[in-house]
Amino acid sequence: MLVQDEGGRIVLLVLDGLGGLPHLDTGLTELESAATPNLDRLARAAALGMQLPVAHGVAPGSGPGHLSLFGYDPVKYNIGRGVLSALGVGFAVKPGDVAIRLNFASIDGDGRITDRRAGRPSDEENRRLVKKLQDNVRAPGGVQVFFESEKEHRAVLVLRGRQLSAELADTDPQEEGVRPLPAKALKPEATETAELLQQILDSAFEVLRDEKVANAILARGIDAYHPFPTFFERYMLRARAIAKYPMYRGVARLDGMDSARVPDSDEETVAILAEDFDDYEFHFVHFKAMDSRGEDGDFEAKRKAIEAVDALIPKVEALKPDVLVVTGDHSTPSRLRAHSWHPVPLMIVSPWTRPQPDATFGERSCMRGELGIVPGREIMTLALAHAGRLAKYGA
Amino acid sequence: MLVQDEGGRIVLLVLDGLGGLPHLDTGLTELESAATPNLDRLARAAALGMQLPVAHGVAPGSGPGHLSLFGYDPVKYNIGRGVLSALGVGFAVKPGDVAIRLNFASIDGDGRITDRRAGRPSDEENRRLVKKLQDNVRAPGGVQVFFESEKEHRAVLVLRGRQLSAELADTDPQEEGVRPLPAKALKPEATETAELLQQILDSAFEVLRDEKVANAILARGIDAYHPFPTFFERYMLRARAIAKYPMYRGVARLDGMDSARVPDSDEETVAILAEDFDDYEFHFVHFKAMDSRGEDGDFEAKRKAIEAVDALIPKVEALKPDVLVVTGDHSTPSRLRAHSWHPVPLMIVSPWTRPQPDATFGERSCMRGELGIVPGREIMTLALAHAGRLAKYGA
Repeated sequence: MLVQDEGGRIVLLVLDGLGGLPHLDTGLTELESAATPNLDRLARAAALGMQLPVAHGVAPGSGPGHLSLFGYDPVKYNIGRGVLSALGVGFAVKPGDVAIRLNFASIDGDGRITDRRAGRPSDEENRRLVKKLQDNVRAPGGVQVFFESEKEHRAVLVLRGRQLSAELADTDPQEEGVRPLPAKALKPEATETAELLQQILDSAFEVLRDEKVANAILARGIDAYHPFPTFFERYMLRARAIAKYPMYRGVARLDGMDSARVPDSDEETVAILAEDFDDYEFHFVHFKAMDSRGEDGDFEAKRKAIEAVDALIPKVEALKPDVLVVTGDHSTPSRLRAHSWHPVPLMIVSPWTRPQPDATFGERSCMRGELGIVPGREIMTLALAHAGRLAKYGA
Repeated sequence: MLVQDEGGRIVLLVLDGLGGLPHLDTGLTELESAATPNLDRLARAAALGMQLPVAHGVAPGSGPGHLSLFGYDPVKYNIGRGVLSALGVGFAVKPGDVAIRLNFASIDGDGRITDRRAGRPSDEENRRLVKKLQDNVRAPGGVQVFFESEKEHRAVLVLRGRQLSAELADTDPQEEGVRPLPAKALKPEATETAELLQQILDSAFEVLRDEKVANAILARGIDAYHPFPTFFERYMLRARAIAKYPMYRGVARLDGMDSARVPDSDEETVAILAEDFDDYEFHFVHFKAMDSRGEDGDFEAKRKAIEAVDALIPKVEALKPDVLVVTGDHSTPSRLRAHSWHPVPLMIVSPWTRPQPDATFGERSCMRGELGIVPGREIMTLALAHAGRLAKYGA
C-alpha cells in the first residue's frame, strides 16, 4: 500500500447533481450560465477534468455516486436499496443488519391488495402508523426489530440479530387484486430468517387490522449491510462528513467517517467546516440544492443554487486546505429532471497542476483540462497524490 | 494473439522523467520552455497523447515505469526491491535467483547495532568490503553466493541454487541499540533458505569481525526473480536496449531484450542505434539526463537536457524507422524534485495519424492530441498497430 500517514489536508466539496446539459436557447449548461467568479478563478490554476462516477451511460444513484467519490468501486461495494433507505432516514445501520423497505398498503376482507400505497398517507399519519408498529409488533426471540418512518406510504424495517440472511424475496407482488406474497427464502441459508420475517409480518398485520386504510405492509428491497474497509484503513485519513441530509452522512458513516454537527443551511455547512478544521485530514462537504432544482426541471433555480455555493468558496479558501476538490456525485440536467449518465465537472486545486490560463469551471472547459475523463473512484488517489500522501510505486 | 511476424521497425525513445510542471514565472513546463524544433516538427504530423504509466495519482519508480512502456502491466509484473537493486548494479539476474539488499553496519562488542550505515563508507571502501566478503564467505553446499557493490553503505547479495524461497523477513531491525534479527522464514517453504541465509550471514560476520567500522551486514528487501514472458514471445519482435545505466538495461533484459554496446553519452547512444539497425525490429533507447536534472530541482538544466535530445532527433530520423515513439517513463517535475504521478507526453510518429497542424511536443499540446490519456501499457499495442504488426481482431 502506497498511502503515507503524513501530508496535506484535503477538502472535498460535493455539489450534488452538479453536471447539466445546455439550455436550448443559450447553448450553455446551468454551470456554464452561472456567475461563478470564485470557482472560475480557482479553475484557472487547477487541474480540470470530467469524472465518470460509475461507467459511460450509467446514471448513478446517490449511494454509488458518493462511494465512487470516496474511492470505493461502486460496482464492488454495492449498497442495497434497503440499507440505502435505512441510511436515508438516518438509522445507524450496523454490520449484519437486514434492512427492508416497506409500503403501507390496503387489503380487502379477502386479504387482496386494493391499494399498494394505502392512499398515500401524510407523513404525520405515516409516523403514527410506524409508532404503532414499533410499540406493538412482537419481535421473535433473539431478534431486534426497528420500524422507521420515511415519507407518505414508505417506511423501513431493520432486523438485528445473529446470523440473519437477506436472501429473501419481496412480499410485495407489485400488483393489486392479489394477496401479499409470503416471506420466502431465495437460498437455503435464509430459511430461518424467512420464518422470522413472516412472524413479524403476521404480527404487523394483526396490529394494523383495525386501521381503515393502511391495514397491511408490503416488504421489498431486502438486503444486509456488510461493512466496508474504512476510510482510515484505506487512506490513513481522519475524515468527517458535513451534510444536511441523513442519506449523505449515512454513506460517509458506512466508510467510517465521523459526522460533524448537522447544518441547517449551506452557510452553516461552511461555518461547521471551520470548526475543529485541524482535527481532520479529510473533510467531505455536501451541498444539495443543485440536484433538487435539477430534478424539479428548474434551470434558473439550479443556476442560482450553483451561484450560492460559489459565494461561499472564499470562506473555504480561507481555511487553506492543501488540496481542494470540487465536483458532483453525478449530473442532474434540468432538461432531464433526473440523475443522468453524463460525466461531472471536476477540479483539483493544488500547486501541482498543469492549468490552462483561459479555463473556467464548466463542463466544456473541464473537458479540455489535464485530467481528461477520470473514473470517479480514482479521484481519491489523485487527491492523496496532490496532498503528498502517496509513496512512489516501485523503485 | 493478434501479433504478426512481419511489419515495420519500431524505435522507442525514452526521455526519462520527461513530464514536468509549469515554471511559476512563465507558466510553461520544462518541455514547453525548451527549444525543440525537431520534436515539434514531428509532433505536427504525429499521434499525440498523454500516457499514464500506472494509474491516476501513482508516481512510478523506474522499474514499473519502463515495464509499462514495454507493455507489461506494472501491477501484475512486479519487480521486487532486491531484484531491482541487483539490476541496478548490472548483475545478470536469472530465474529463481533470490536477491537481497545489504547495508554495511557497525555493531558493538555486545552485538548491538551502533550505526545502521557503518558511517557511510566511500564507494572504494565499499568495493574493498564486498571483495573481502566475496573471497572469504563460505557458501553452503548447493548454493552460489554473489556479493555486489552498490554505493556508500549499500550492497547486494544474490543467492543462486535449487528451490530457494524468498519468503524471508528482513534481518535489519530498522533501529540501533538492538542486535540484527536472525534470518526467519515467513512461510514454511522458506525454512531451508532461512537456514542457508543464516549460515551465510554468520560467515560474513566472521569475515568482517576484524573491521573497525563496517563489522556487520543487515539484509532487507529479499525477493526472487520470476521470469516474465519475453518481448519476443509477446510481440514477435527481436528487441535490443541501448542505455548507459545498468538499471534500464536490466529491466530490458528481464523482458528478454538484447543489450547493445553500452554508450558513454547521448551522442554515442544514437551512434550505437545506427549500428546493426536492421538486425532488430524494436529498439529501446534510453536518455537519462531529464530525470536527474528534475530530481536536482534544476528547471533550466532539465530544459537543456531536453534540447540536447532534440538535437539528436535528425540522426534517429535518418535511420527511417517505420514507427518512432517518443515519451518518458514518468514525470519528474523540477518543482517537485521527484518522480510524480502526472501523465507523460507521448508521440507516435507514423503515416497513420490524425494530427493537429498547430501541435507542438509539450504537455498541454499532447493533451489535445488524438490519443487522449493512454494507459502506458497500451503504447506497445499502438506501436505494433502503426507498424502493421497486428492482425484484425475477429472476422
